[in-house]
Amino acid sequence: MEQDFLDWLLPRLPADPRLEIGPGDDAAVIRPPAGRRTVVSVDMLTEGVDFLLGDDCSPRQVGRKALAVGLSDLAAMAARPEAAVVAVCLPRGGAAIARELADGVAELAREHDVALAGGDTNAWDGALVVSVTVIGSVAPGRAWRRDGARPGDRIVATGAFGGSILGRHLDVRPRLAEAAWIAERFPVHAAIDVSDGLSLDLSRLLAASACGAVVDLAAVPIHADAVRLGARDTTPPLDHALADGEDFELLLALPAAAADDLLAADRPFPTPLTAIGTVTAAAGLQARGADGRLAPLEPRGFLHAFGG
Amino acid sequence: MEQDFLDWLLPRLPADPRLEIGPGDDAAVIRPPAGRRTVVSVDMLTEGVDFLLGDDCSPRQVGRKALAVGLSDLAAMAARPEAAVVAVCLPRGGAAIARELADGVAELAREHDVALAGGDTNAWDGALVVSVTVIGSVAPGRAWRRDGARPGDRIVATGAFGGSILGRHLDVRPRLAEAAWIAERFPVHAAIDVSDGLSLDLSRLLAASACGAVVDLAAVPIHADAVRLGARDTTPPLDHALADGEDFELLLALPAAAADDLLAADRPFPTPLTAIGTVTAAAGLQARGADGRLAPLEPRGFLHAFGG
Repeated sequence: MEQDFLDWLLPRLPADPRLEIGPGDDAAVIRPPAGRRTVVSVDMLTEGVDFLLGDDCSPRQVGRKALAVGLSDLAAMAARPEAAVVAVCLPRGGAAIARELADGVAELAREHDVALAGGDTNAWDGALVVSVTVIGSVAPGRAWRRDGARPGDRIVATGAFGGSILGRHLDVRPRLAEAAWIAERFPVHAAIDVSDGLSLDLSRLLAASACGAVVDLAAVPIHADAVRLGARDTTPPLDHALADGEDFELLLALPAAAADDLLAADRPFPTPLTAIGTVTAAAGLQARGADGRLAPLEPRGFLHAFGG
Repeated sequence: MEQDFLDWLLPRLPADPRLEIGPGDDAAVIRPPAGRRTVVSVDMLTEGVDFLLGDDCSPRQVGRKALAVGLSDLAAMAARPEAAVVAVCLPRGGAAIARELADGVAELAREHDVALAGGDTNAWDGALVVSVTVIGSVAPGRAWRRDGARPGDRIVATGAFGGSILGRHLDVRPRLAEAAWIAERFPVHAAIDVSDGLSLDLSRLLAASACGAVVDLAAVPIHADAVRLGARDTTPPLDHALADGEDFELLLALPAAAADDLLAADRPFPTPLTAIGTVTAAAGLQARGADGRLAPLEPRGFLHAFGG
């Protein structure tokens, strides 16, 4: 029963100085950091689409992932996480799921110093649905936008891409520390996180910026998971890297000289950074192959189909 | 397809000076009002539990309701609405549903001056799920809490109760104007909105305040819908008023003298206010009948059952 769950949950949530009123009231009251903007993003994950509960995926992992994808959005804005609220709709008999899921959310919240401010628990005859709203902060005018890329900007990616379905999609590492460090030191013109696919999300950044890009295929960092997956399904690992999605890495557009400095800088995090291409005035994505020739690159990735 | 929906939606959302970055980026960036706290609440509505799409319930009404229940939470905190983000999971073929639902959200957002800041659209083989996170503001220390009721406080209700299932539950009127006016003038100790049932939500306020109450049954405002429903199902209208829920009226606890002043005041809104009982030091709910005698009053209302 909902009250039993709340009686279990609320004492487990640590008090947080950012909360004037914490979970358990009609709404949470948050003390916003002075002089900063509020950054908000919501994501909804559904069983059967974003995860399949089973041996390979526990409710705890779902809880972690649901918060992590929101934190990845904050990273893509160069925002600092402050708080989160969580809404769930549980399958019947889902009390154990609720507790495990809450443990997963709380665990990642601790790791990134996020105040869990409130939530909503529901039950129905359908599958598990989780929605997390993250609230962050950023200095005025300092958020990374999608629409600021300029011709000549270098495109820099964190980490490596492809094959996340082999397990990495349930162990999302939001690039918050990387974003915070870079944002303080380098003039990033535009940023996005890769949730649906490297080429698809890059095309979104470029469309918002009214630009195009040339991607240097030989430079795209291919994750070992993409190689493993490619060995199974005979799809080239590069294709996995360009289209699989759920990498939750960042793509940044910044002036070429700044990108060179960033790549040469002594950085306090191990996450690799790689220049994968250049922004062009002409719209559209192009790929530069090993032979140096350009060919159109079709944006591919995960799209929710709800036509009709 | 998701992009088609966004291409339709984003140009329809009015620019809002509160948004430094509006919908369409990885997250929204909001300019918070200076010197105020941030108030946050999330609600999730699911088809089959909170609504049944059909002749009596359009996606537009679902959109309105999803935002309205969040605004009712803000009213219960005496907060001013600022912004909202919306996540939906659509059944396959749900593009038309998405547009109608968005129209409903946008309509109510205009009525209450809420900036629509962002969202997340998904599709799956299940039923429609909508989650709305509302963001409001309130002066420091001025939010209405659940846990501040004191023995001797009068309990004042807005509006009338019961029978909301006959249609009112889809035409929720968040008591924002009433709350704002009262909060500026009267020392409200505690407040809650009635979503699950008058007696159940009152018991929650009292439990949080470590108090009890005597409810004067003859004073409980019974909605005409409760009378109509009672005529059909032979349940006394008072029982409907005490237990049906989805009234989205406010219950306020405030000192008796202040309550008298409030009830006698010349108010700028037509919503009736009624004193329905008194807070007691002893825990538990009691009902005073027409004969003046006290009897235990069992808290009743809607509870999500997800045991197991």
